[in-house]
Amino acid sequence: MDTTPYGLRIRVSLPFEAAVARATEALSAQGFGVLTTIDMQQALKEKLGKDIGKYVILGACNPPLAARALDAEPDIGLLLPCNVIVYETAPGASTVAAMAPLAALSLVANVEIAAVAEEADRRLRAALATMKA
Amino acid sequence: MDTTPYGLRIRVSLPFEAAVARATEALSAQGFGVLTTIDMQQALKEKLGKDIGKYVILGACNPPLAARALDAEPDIGLLLPCNVIVYETAPGASTVAAMAPLAALSLVANVEIAAVAEEADRRLRAALATMKA
Repeated sequence: MDTTPYGLRIRVSLPFEAAVARATEALSAQGFGVLTTIDMQQALKEKLGKDIGKYVILGACNPPLAARALDAEPDIGLLLPCNVIVYETAPGASTVAAMAPLAALSLVANVEIAAVAEEADRRLRAALATMKA
Repeated sequence: MDTTPYGLRIRVSLPFEAAVARATEALSAQGFGVLTTIDMQQALKEKLGKDIGKYVILGACNPPLAARALDAEPDIGLLLPCNVIVYETAPGASTVAAMAPLAALSLVANVEIAAVAEEADRRLRAALATMKA
């Protein structure tokens, strides 16, 4: 697993659609439901006529963690849900990355939010590790 | 307008539903379409039986800016779309806040992304200023 400045990233030997399905399952097993899906390829084609590769942004939310974070700091919704992106890097190969909660945390000074971010980080790493296995 | 560590925030004398409609219009005038809406009040009620006040997370996307950002750095989707939250603070009073692109930018080291974040910041500030007027 690569740790980027703001993400946790893996490369998988799966076609794009299978990678999206696998990511959704792996997130679910860690208590994250996918609340939103943005098809960036379709959005940029429709709005700008621009062609990019297959690319989705999944908005993943773990309700108990979200509730704890909102109790601690109402404006934390600006950093929710946890984004997970999937894009095709080659036929049969995809990249899956999750927003690193501990990176986003650097923007927030709140002990309870720190605890929530640590748990979210642990769960997202577990989800990506499952996909890689 | 308040500048928080990761947001730009205003308080408006509008009921929640009117504030959401006004935010959507103000964002549209600055080239941001609302691609996703998460009703956090409904989500937490359904999943946890927990009551919070009226609260939505709008996923706002300016397609030309998103396209420039993705060209510069594929993983930037982890920081898209721009979140705008609206929540009710009292009957007839709401808070509207936008993710501060320049705060998120502190996580990214990329000159082109910096230029995009500056333009997004300018446009989001303009949208909030319109709502306040």
